[in-house]
Amino acid sequence: MSQLIRFGVSIEETLLKKFDQHIQARAYGNRSEAIRDLIRERLIQQDWEEDADEAVGTITLIYDHHVRELTTVLTEIQHHHNANIISSMHVHLDEHHCLEVLAVRGRPRTLIEIANRLISTKGVKHGKLVSTSSGRNI
Amino acid sequence: MSQLIRFGVSIEETLLKKFDQHIQARAYGNRSEAIRDLIRERLIQQDWEEDADEAVGTITLIYDHHVRELTTVLTEIQHHHNANIISSMHVHLDEHHCLEVLAVRGRPRTLIEIANRLISTKGVKHGKLVSTSSGRNI
Amino acid sequence: MSQLIRFGVSIEETLLKKFDQHIQARAYGNRSEAIRDLIRERLIQQDWEEDADEAVGTITLIYDHHVRELTTVLTEIQHHHNANIISSMHVHLDEHHCLEVLAVRGRPRTLIEIANRLISTKGVKHGKLVSTSSGRNI
Amino acid sequence: MSQLIRFGVSIEETLLKKFDQHIQARAYGNRSEAIRDLIRERLIQQDWEEDADEAVGTITLIYDHHVRELTTVLTEIQHHHNANIISSMHVHLDEHHCLEVLAVRGRPRTLIEIANRLISTKGVKHGKLVSTSSGRNI
Repeated sequence: MSQLIRFGVSIEETLLKKFDQHIQARAYGNRSEAIRDLIRERLIQQDWEEDADEAVGTITLIYDHHVRELTTVLTEIQHHHNANIISSMHVHLDEHHCLEVLAVRGRPRTLIEIANRLISTKGVKHGKLVSTSSGRNI
Repeated sequence: MSQLIRFGVSIEETLLKKFDQHIQARAYGNRSEAIRDLIRERLIQQDWEEDADEAVGTITLIYDHHVRELTTVLTEIQHHHNANIISSMHVHLDEHHCLEVLAVRGRPRTLIEIANRLISTKGVKHGKLVSTSSGRNI
Repeated sequence: MSQLIRFGVSIEETLLKKFDQHIQARAYGNRSEAIRDLIRERLIQQDWEEDADEAVGTITLIYDHHVRELTTVLTEIQHHHNANIISSMHVHLDEHHCLEVLAVRGRPRTLIEIANRLISTKGVKHGKLVSTSSGRNI
Repeated sequence: MSQLIRFGVSIEETLLKKFDQHIQARAYGNRSEAIRDLIRERLIQQDWEEDADEAVGTITLIYDHHVRELTTVLTEIQHHHNANIISSMHVHLDEHHCLEVLAVRGRPRTLIEIANRLISTKGVKHGKLVSTSSGRNI
């Protein structure tokens, strides 16, 4: 892990006060942790915009498993992209509906394509891709 | 499941043509499926804005498990909110970093609070809440 | 203007009912208008992701005009990009703060760069780029 | 204006290096300015989520002024909300299309309602509300 260093930030007193209230409401232990989170969030966003070499994500799907062939189709798409799909979790929400979350890894563009392909499948009612990072350089 | 009905949409020819190219690129089987997805996406967004009775979500966390006490703290927060956390999946990204995804259920406001609490924990490098639905009414 | 045509959408009865409530709350005159808005929103988003040839946008800036040299710097940046900046509107919010909105036109990538350059200027407290379209093909 | 004070941030060396590259690419003069922008962005977001007493915004509209009655309807809606609309700017994009930007002020919920009402009007092809602040407390 990288060495910790320290730098100074100059800021208006009223702005810092408002920020301190915010981080307390969000249960941050201290300002540094909150600032690092803001920085990491911004850098991850940039990595995705610039299609960085390696990113990590999760794809959340809500679907009705009674729709004909749906489970088969979803499984096929996932196997086709097995190099990018690390693992998945399945939750039975009710008689009809499933929540499935896939952990994915690869270039942002590839992960976006996999997500779009799954989300557009008939029977999938909602889907979302989370853009995150392997954590290594941030 | 609800009965299928049909309604008509009037639209400019050029706009429909551009939409057809878009849904083909996204691998939709037909227009109805793509339109239903747009509608559901909008309704789920509204449910979260209005703090609907019951929503479903996933919380994605990236963290360094070598940070002292982190695993203990994350587990405690999760047990405290066991009524809202359905299950979780864990992926070892490298020597240091973990990806954890929680499936959550409850009022949007509660799910947002749980996500904020987890994301602000020291050692959690990035986190995101996905706002979705149980699929039942959409 | 393009000719109006009509196409049919098949949809679950409960989903359509919920959508009808939504569009009534948003004051839409009819379903077609609401559907067209969802389609156009999606297509504009795609144009910006794919860096389409020509896009339109607005850049909103909040700044403190008492910050030394700020007005000069903002004017210089705007003149440097005069080919992309159509016009601007200025509002005096209070003794210190100004709201300025620029109407811009050009490739998405160029408009993003101009917005970033303005927003990062010392004294600019907040800024946002709106991604929209000339309206021509949608 | 509030007095400037200074606080220290501890951070991993690699993370700071990556952030320095980012702020250079975005043309920030120094780290403090970039950090303050991240903080203000977050606080403005919170103000809007919590429906703060007073917010500022801009509403961008793209519309086809040849649509019957559209200009009259848009003007009526704006006059009805004259207490919240500070001023507006109009750009003729081509023979048919107009860009209009309104500067608005008031409670977030009110501004959202005005934006929704304008955007759902027949003939308005696209619209976006920018959530910002009067700049006073940030």
